[in-house]
Amino acid sequence: MLGLMQDWPLLVHKIIDHAAQNHGDREVVTRSVEGPIHRTNYREIAVRARKVAEALDRLGLKEGDRIATLAWNTWRHLETWYGITGMGGVYHTLNPRLFPDQLIYIANHAEDKVIFFDITFASLVEQIAPKLPKVELYIAMTDAAHLAEMTKKSGANIPNLVAYEEFIAGSSGTYEWKQLDEKAACGLCYTSGTTGNPKGVLYSHRSNMLHAMMCAQTDAQAVCSRDSILPVVPMFHANAWGLAFSAPMVGAKLVMPGPKLDGASVCELLTTERVTMTAAVPTVWLTALQYMDQNNISLPHLNRVMIGGSACPRSMIETFEKKYNVQVIHAWGMTEMSPLGTIGTLKHHVAELPHDKQMDYKVKQGHPVFGVEMKITDDDNNELPRDGKAFGRLKVRGPAIVKGYFRGEGTDAFDDDGWFDTGDVATIDSESYMTITDRSKDVIKSGGEWISSIEIENIAVGHPAVAEAAVIGVRHPKWDERPLLIVVKKPGAAVTREDILEYLKGKIAKWWMPDDVQFVADIPHTATGKIQKTTLREQFHAYRLPTAAE
Amino acid sequence: MLGLMQDWPLLVHKIIDHAAQNHGDREVVTRSVEGPIHRTNYREIAVRARKVAEALDRLGLKEGDRIATLAWNTWRHLETWYGITGMGGVYHTLNPRLFPDQLIYIANHAEDKVIFFDITFASLVEQIAPKLPKVELYIAMTDAAHLAEMTKKSGANIPNLVAYEEFIAGSSGTYEWKQLDEKAACGLCYTSGTTGNPKGVLYSHRSNMLHAMMCAQTDAQAVCSRDSILPVVPMFHANAWGLAFSAPMVGAKLVMPGPKLDGASVCELLTTERVTMTAAVPTVWLTALQYMDQNNISLPHLNRVMIGGSACPRSMIETFEKKYNVQVIHAWGMTEMSPLGTIGTLKHHVAELPHDKQMDYKVKQGHPVFGVEMKITDDDNNELPRDGKAFGRLKVRGPAIVKGYFRGEGTDAFDDDGWFDTGDVATIDSESYMTITDRSKDVIKSGGEWISSIEIENIAVGHPAVAEAAVIGVRHPKWDERPLLIVVKKPGAAVTREDILEYLKGKIAKWWMPDDVQFVADIPHTATGKIQKTTLREQFHAYRLPTAAE
Repeated sequence: MLGLMQDWPLLVHKIIDHAAQNHGDREVVTRSVEGPIHRTNYREIAVRARKVAEALDRLGLKEGDRIATLAWNTWRHLETWYGITGMGGVYHTLNPRLFPDQLIYIANHAEDKVIFFDITFASLVEQIAPKLPKVELYIAMTDAAHLAEMTKKSGANIPNLVAYEEFIAGSSGTYEWKQLDEKAACGLCYTSGTTGNPKGVLYSHRSNMLHAMMCAQTDAQAVCSRDSILPVVPMFHANAWGLAFSAPMVGAKLVMPGPKLDGASVCELLTTERVTMTAAVPTVWLTALQYMDQNNISLPHLNRVMIGGSACPRSMIETFEKKYNVQVIHAWGMTEMSPLGTIGTLKHHVAELPHDKQMDYKVKQGHPVFGVEMKITDDDNNELPRDGKAFGRLKVRGPAIVKGYFRGEGTDAFDDDGWFDTGDVATIDSESYMTITDRSKDVIKSGGEWISSIEIENIAVGHPAVAEAAVIGVRHPKWDERPLLIVVKKPGAAVTREDILEYLKGKIAKWWMPDDVQFVADIPHTATGKIQKTTLREQFHAYRLPTAAE
Repeated sequence: MLGLMQDWPLLVHKIIDHAAQNHGDREVVTRSVEGPIHRTNYREIAVRARKVAEALDRLGLKEGDRIATLAWNTWRHLETWYGITGMGGVYHTLNPRLFPDQLIYIANHAEDKVIFFDITFASLVEQIAPKLPKVELYIAMTDAAHLAEMTKKSGANIPNLVAYEEFIAGSSGTYEWKQLDEKAACGLCYTSGTTGNPKGVLYSHRSNMLHAMMCAQTDAQAVCSRDSILPVVPMFHANAWGLAFSAPMVGAKLVMPGPKLDGASVCELLTTERVTMTAAVPTVWLTALQYMDQNNISLPHLNRVMIGGSACPRSMIETFEKKYNVQVIHAWGMTEMSPLGTIGTLKHHVAELPHDKQMDYKVKQGHPVFGVEMKITDDDNNELPRDGKAFGRLKVRGPAIVKGYFRGEGTDAFDDDGWFDTGDVATIDSESYMTITDRSKDVIKSGGEWISSIEIENIAVGHPAVAEAAVIGVRHPKWDERPLLIVVKKPGAAVTREDILEYLKGKIAKWWMPDDVQFVADIPHTATGKIQKTTLREQFHAYRLPTAAE
């Protein structure tokens, strides 16, 4: 049966080629690491990406080799990604916010051969370089003059060092992209992971391309050629949520913030570059909204902002929508999912609800885009009802979702049917709006039923005397686990165990009632401000519940 | 290097599963062939599609078997497509507008084993059935009562006949979709072709899926879950421009017009079903706009209309936009391209132009969506400049573009690099807006240069005495070919050869000037209203140009 359709492997360099050919004049604007605003376009970026590829090829790098970047969102970082993937390499984004020891572990685990870095990170690179025996070349993402200036100023001593502009200077820009299998590796990103070593997620050309096409849907990022897009979310954070691929795919203008992610800098770009769409975690918007408020800034061009990484507070959504007339797209995803999972764009029946009812949906994590399958199960992998009430382990499947971690680690996250266990506990309603209720390692398993630690915490902090609350499961001879509520009182507040329990009554199910309340001076947090429950559990290791008398 | 992303083959039944699970309540509304409005939803359609699959499987049909449909856009047709593809079969859309002999040729060439048909086409089926030895079963897409009534009324005698509802009645609806390779055949559609026999385009699961994802982009169909979509374009016409896949992919409501495509019927659905997006060829809108005008109809819900199949006149775009506040998305594609090629959504620099300048772009065929590569070449396959002036053979490449016709026919349309020659002649400007200037078999090749027959025709019909004009190339001893202008005068108009040539002067290049003008009583047309140049060339076979004296 001859016939059928063309072989056209899904290779990410086709994205930059499409942009160069069909949207060649479209701008890529960067607040450069060196300081000034830098302007280029997709036509030039495609040529320079070929130069990067040619120079890497000349170095003797081979298909599948990992090449790291330790860099902000800039046009050079974009060129580097496309250049690396076009010569068959694997771009490996290093997160500069990690501790040097973590970076050393990750770069060695990945066996990075080259590290591209922004000069902001020179002293960090100097610090880790002696421990990275596999790295053959360090490329400072600047020109020779700025590199010399930086070296003089910082005194940083980095071996095998070359300036980016010199590295690519000898190349013609006519390099022919490698012909690759679409399932070839293309990118690598490590998940920070609250326990154990970071684990690598290895993206393929196919997964990145399909993910970009999923992002480009109107109910996802809705990116189009008329957009001016500011990805505040870094390229080293879960692929910049796909924007480094989806924006050139549709010919949108890209506005790259470089190293400055403070409120004033972000707001300035939003205005001067007439940004229509932007994306970042809630903490960025917390400071940006404060700045806007203090400086009476309006956002006439911006029409939507994508917020994810952690849950977006209701008040933030309302401020954006009511005060600035900017639509919030609340999204949820994971490094393991490329990262897009669910998206909070309004489904038709929600769009017809009154504003406050809509808000009840907007604070949820959203519904899955096409290409993401989602289910919740109990511990025995039995699927739970999609009724918005039952909560269980959230499992996902799709073409842009990890099949296994790099080098075969963390196999317990995958089941035989190919579902990946997200480690989150969630509800799904009948129309597929998903709400995360807990992390699966924090949920309390009491007599075969699950209790959401987060829900009790959210209610407990409503008590006027409570500054912060955390709930952990504590061993119980009869129920396996029972909830213990740990409370930090507000300064000067007088409140008893009984007051708190009384306050909870009627607000949560009877069997969810904590068996005890313990007051502490403070609760430990992670670097990103989340409650560090592993540490809490260690602190309360010797604690016995009053109800646990055997 | 373990790791990488999940195997998740691109199989079209995943689209209906996604719709059923995440947009289960979303309606599919049909003006049924039997008469009344019929309402169902994606949840029910997915179940009934499984029943179709189960019943076909029980018949003994195998993977790759072709199963024809001769049907309007209805919910049953949708179920049939998904059911066929989910059991590994190939849906083959028969175009009821073809002559019986063509249908017989096509169904035999495809070796269709089953034909699903709407009862509207009973007498057509009766007529062709005796000539279709491979067809084992005819399924009338209705229930037993309506089938009996139809048979009684029409007296049609069709062998091996069963009603659709009876055919699927014995199935459970829990059929498990076949596990297929994503490159497996999935659909088949024949191009009508002005010369030679129709040729088959065999779509794969992968090509249909990628095409649907291309369609779902904001700069393409921009379909989303809040849309109510009326595909007036039939499913037997180039996959209903992908809407039967892209609409369920995003959870849009589908409004199926059934057999009634007249202005009144279309307008009624636009209003009662609050249609936000619709799609059809210009001739449909010609009658619909007339109806709207005569009946003072407004379109408060509709926000965009996709128009393709043939060039959309400027006046039609203006009427939709100015009078009805409806955006026109002018698109170009081919059966061989699944069909989406280019789309006239505004690029950023066009969106900033004044209205009349925008119109100059809106009448063009548009720019290619991601997934379509496009170039123009001369006869020797040398690429021509993208300057909006040079015109050449339009060639395309992409994952949803045909690699070869069914059974290996028409190989001359493909070059060694995998480009498909569209048979069109076009210009491409620097920002990739493409304009079709001619069919390559109609372009006039004079002294190595090309002359666009269509451009001369468009100018000639501007003469007040000209009712219709056609230009064909006629043999010339020195220049190979020279243009001959053939004119139908308006009733009662007196105009000479010299008047017409004088009128053309200054409006076209000197060397484009026709060598002669011939007046005729009428010009032959194809069934779809296009000028039949093959017939014209035959009529003027013996004609000698006055300039051709040897």
